[in-house]
Amino acid sequence: MDTSNVKAFIFDVFGTVVDWRTSITLQCEKFGETKGIQRDWASFADAWRAKYRPYMDKVSNGELPWTNLDTLHRMGLEDTLDEFEISGLSETEKHTINQFWHNLKPWVDSVPGLYRLKGKYIISTMSNGNVALMTNMAKNGGLPWDCILGAEVAQHYKPEPESYLTNVRLLGLTPDQVVMTAAHQGDLLAAARSGLRTAFVPRPLEHGPDKTPDPTPDPSFNVVAKDFIDLAAKVGA
Amino acid sequence: MDTSNVKAFIFDVFGTVVDWRTSITLQCEKFGETKGIQRDWASFADAWRAKYRPYMDKVSNGELPWTNLDTLHRMGLEDTLDEFEISGLSETEKHTINQFWHNLKPWVDSVPGLYRLKGKYIISTMSNGNVALMTNMAKNGGLPWDCILGAEVAQHYKPEPESYLTNVRLLGLTPDQVVMTAAHQGDLLAAARSGLRTAFVPRPLEHGPDKTPDPTPDPSFNVVAKDFIDLAAKVGA
Repeated sequence: MDTSNVKAFIFDVFGTVVDWRTSITLQCEKFGETKGIQRDWASFADAWRAKYRPYMDKVSNGELPWTNLDTLHRMGLEDTLDEFEISGLSETEKHTINQFWHNLKPWVDSVPGLYRLKGKYIISTMSNGNVALMTNMAKNGGLPWDCILGAEVAQHYKPEPESYLTNVRLLGLTPDQVVMTAAHQGDLLAAARSGLRTAFVPRPLEHGPDKTPDPTPDPSFNVVAKDFIDLAAKVGA
Repeated sequence: MDTSNVKAFIFDVFGTVVDWRTSITLQCEKFGETKGIQRDWASFADAWRAKYRPYMDKVSNGELPWTNLDTLHRMGLEDTLDEFEISGLSETEKHTINQFWHNLKPWVDSVPGLYRLKGKYIISTMSNGNVALMTNMAKNGGLPWDCILGAEVAQHYKPEPESYLTNVRLLGLTPDQVVMTAAHQGDLLAAARSGLRTAFVPRPLEHGPDKTPDPTPDPSFNVVAKDFIDLAAKVGA
């Protein structure tokens, strides 16, 4: 990729920067131990995450007014607790579980790769996660973002074009100066339709060791890297 | 101040974190030298800065639609160039001068003080400057913000309550968990009216060595510190 015009890299976060599945599983497991509740917590994490898109779609199609991801996670948590027949938790306990999303561990290459990229480019979140969630996650995981931007500031969830384009506008840039970085091909293809450039970093373990990774990269992506350190090297950072 | 409930410090930036007057003066001086234009550039900086509030007021009172600070600075620049009888600059040159606001030097205590505060609290901008301006300034000056928030994201300029309260809401906090930090008493009093706590850090040299500094601190402020290192010490950071 010719990077002479590029000023910023913006990032999908859940799955791309952090390992949400392991992090949610381990925190739920620990919570379960203290409460004496035994479940398959990896399946619980998968089931909870599976509520994510349907709830956001309700916002995008107007069925729900603007609702941030903390609140959508909480709605999904209620459903998931029902499905796993876990009852009798207090409001405080449910809040504690919901906040597990604020404490997701970065993939091992994420922090060093982001530091390298930050030395040459603006690095910003472009997540569906709300500002508080992203801010707390950054502090918990040492993610050195220049800016916390994304769906909440745009009041539009990905893959709506307004989500990407608000980020670009707030950075004072044009779409071709910004590289959307993600482990999810649909996210990149949507960003590309709004004129952004694209970096694909597959995360084959996002959904656990038994799931099939995202298939062959779309040939339109501007750069494909095996992790963030490889990405930094490929874009001269 | 009892800080047991405090989660975040949010900051006025122009004057409080950075020395806009010296920075604008020096950059204009250098530009003048390359163009062979001689003026009193400190007076030019003062005159340009004096357009800031009147232009923002036009947005706040509805005379102008939402307009970010880069654009208001540019309007003020045109006025100031006229007043100082500077003509014949190209669009590119005017853009270069306008971008001088993206490159303002921090006061000597700002960066070390912010690092200390960041170790214990969320630190965010709460400036009338737009996101791109604040982001570039942070990269140029090494300001380690957790978040870049403020007027542009709220679409309301300070001292409108919505400006402070949008920041508090995006951080997922309540007003009493957030400390507004500024060298300007009016900014703090406005934040306090929205329920935020207040830290006053006077910057007696903001308007140059010959100007009278802001008078005795209002007794309502929760903390008064002589600089950011003193502030960090006073709030246990």
